[in-house]
Amino acid sequence: MRVGVVGAYSTKYELRSEKEAWELLKEAVQGTLSSVDKGISGEDIDFVIVSNFSDRFSGILHTAPYVVSLVGRSSAKGLRVENACASGGTALYVAWNLVRSGLARNVLVVGYEKMSHQPTSAEINEVLMAAGHPDEIVVGAPFVSLYALIAKAYMDKYGVTEEDLALVAVKNHENGLRNPLAAMRRKITIEDVMRSPYVSWPLKLYDSSLITDGAAGFIISSEPKKYTDTPVYIEGVGLAHDTPGVFERPDITELRAIRLASEEAFRISNLSIKDVDVLEVHDAFTISELIAYEMLGLAGRGEGAKILREGITLFTGEKPVNPSGGLKSKGHPIGATGVGMVAELFWQLRGEAGDRQVKDAEKGLMENHGGTGGTVVVAVFAR
Amino acid sequence: MRVGVVGAYSTKYELRSEKEAWELLKEAVQGTLSSVDKGISGEDIDFVIVSNFSDRFSGILHTAPYVVSLVGRSSAKGLRVENACASGGTALYVAWNLVRSGLARNVLVVGYEKMSHQPTSAEINEVLMAAGHPDEIVVGAPFVSLYALIAKAYMDKYGVTEEDLALVAVKNHENGLRNPLAAMRRKITIEDVMRSPYVSWPLKLYDSSLITDGAAGFIISSEPKKYTDTPVYIEGVGLAHDTPGVFERPDITELRAIRLASEEAFRISNLSIKDVDVLEVHDAFTISELIAYEMLGLAGRGEGAKILREGITLFTGEKPVNPSGGLKSKGHPIGATGVGMVAELFWQLRGEAGDRQVKDAEKGLMENHGGTGGTVVVAVFAR
Repeated sequence: MRVGVVGAYSTKYELRSEKEAWELLKEAVQGTLSSVDKGISGEDIDFVIVSNFSDRFSGILHTAPYVVSLVGRSSAKGLRVENACASGGTALYVAWNLVRSGLARNVLVVGYEKMSHQPTSAEINEVLMAAGHPDEIVVGAPFVSLYALIAKAYMDKYGVTEEDLALVAVKNHENGLRNPLAAMRRKITIEDVMRSPYVSWPLKLYDSSLITDGAAGFIISSEPKKYTDTPVYIEGVGLAHDTPGVFERPDITELRAIRLASEEAFRISNLSIKDVDVLEVHDAFTISELIAYEMLGLAGRGEGAKILREGITLFTGEKPVNPSGGLKSKGHPIGATGVGMVAELFWQLRGEAGDRQVKDAEKGLMENHGGTGGTVVVAVFAR
Repeated sequence: MRVGVVGAYSTKYELRSEKEAWELLKEAVQGTLSSVDKGISGEDIDFVIVSNFSDRFSGILHTAPYVVSLVGRSSAKGLRVENACASGGTALYVAWNLVRSGLARNVLVVGYEKMSHQPTSAEINEVLMAAGHPDEIVVGAPFVSLYALIAKAYMDKYGVTEEDLALVAVKNHENGLRNPLAAMRRKITIEDVMRSPYVSWPLKLYDSSLITDGAAGFIISSEPKKYTDTPVYIEGVGLAHDTPGVFERPDITELRAIRLASEEAFRISNLSIKDVDVLEVHDAFTISELIAYEMLGLAGRGEGAKILREGITLFTGEKPVNPSGGLKSKGHPIGATGVGMVAELFWQLRGEAGDRQVKDAEKGLMENHGGTGGTVVVAVFAR
């Protein structure tokens, strides 16, 4: 059975949305149901998976029956999954397994997060930190500091500079300019990044992804052609873990679970990184995109910045990464992030991505990770 | 394939635990792994499902990789599920489907909640309320008020009295006296209940389940006999939803999803309520236990209190309900609750329940519900 994505939707990601969390969620549910080419009835949806990170952010819980009621089929079943910033990828993993094992025919996945209404960044940080290892939480280490540890070790080991990291931000902001769904459509230069304040040395404000509000959704089906003539097939999904704490790893310059999850996705799909035409990767911080290149096999160890300087991952390059603008410019409403990656690749592989369309994209890959890579989901799609 | 429970563990449920959330979780993981008769290696666990309600309560998120690291098998996969107070039952539902569809051989399920450290009951209520319909949250209706609406309508319709409700509390506290894991081991009389203050008329303090801290776990296997000579088989699991809001229902005196979920569990198991020897049901409030009797087919509509007065659901009756003490006396650490029901039935059906052992219990049923019954999981077990 070839499981396919038959519809997808995303709200605009915003630095501060006027909508409540449940309104964002409702928009994503209704938008996704309406996005299916040949139409889909709520009666056809037999399972709902909701992706959301924190109820401290979102203020609502037990959203599965609410989504079921919006879908309108009272016998549909639902649940919420959470794996930090990889919640959306995890929802894809669960939905795909429900369909390929015959437990469901059509699954609606929706992800959402409402982050902007926290009174101060201290509150936001406290919630984000809860995704770390208990010992990291106890010592009060925010994620930017944990990624700064990784960045420092990586720069020392491979002679990579702060300017190299800045290139990731410049590229993704350039891409985001072409995406009407992106939260921060602002062209930036290396100088802008270098002049932005340190959040945790060597990582600066412009090395960091955006706190945003947003929601996204998609529907996968065991009979995709029933709902659209141009489904996007899910060729393989991998889910892997690393130690939850950075301090427990033999080499902190690796994000090991990206390699493990991509190996699994490639094994199942009988594809390799060579086959992939477009990628959405989890640029929570600039350093994570460079390491992702290496873990996915786009670049050798320590050569992430090199392939970026060579233009390979630019929008116009051989392997465009984050044509959407990524977490950096499009935004990172946590529960929506991985779900939105599926939506972006659905549009890219159907040739519907407008100004940000990657030419002749036939196969796409998403990499969505949680914490400092404690959970990673990699999926490969084909039109 | 007959999927079986091969081990189970529960911390003592406490009104105020000295332990942090992650310590409760760790105790449950290690206790569950150690509980397997013939032993089980971390290498044998291929999936982990974590059940937790709110990170506002528990302060930690992204716990799946932490549990995987405690299990010690780096290639195990994990995720957290949430369906309000039915999170534990939902975790069972997911784990059982993973095993019966061949996606996993052995799944560890752990549930936890740490609620007692909130500064005031207002904070606790605010978090609990997040499990309601968005419109119920907006108007600020706490769950005790929503159940009070149900109780009032039920009492009016069937001529049931506050004393009838009190009988549930008296029974479950009597049962809890025999359970060393119960949070409140205190014998109470009908007069005690009637004299306790109204929280939301007609529901009083002693009609309400306990805010508690605790964690529980179990392991299910596709090859149960490999791990124990006396597994407890999962004969069927049903999961169903009702409208998330009480106000949307044609008859608020029903908890419709209990009937739907039990019909599904009975259909899969080829069993009926007649076959069941012992039950753990979700007595979030006394009214919910009476309605559960009716939805499960133990009693006709409006006759829940009648069968209780006849002694049928007493510890010594024909169909003992909540020999553990239930949510009322044992406690209700939300993410642990449904998981702890599985543990209790595992012990009951193996004849290991000590002073609270139901004589000759061969088949057991659990009913775990979230919100005002917006999500319900019913499972049937057999030794």
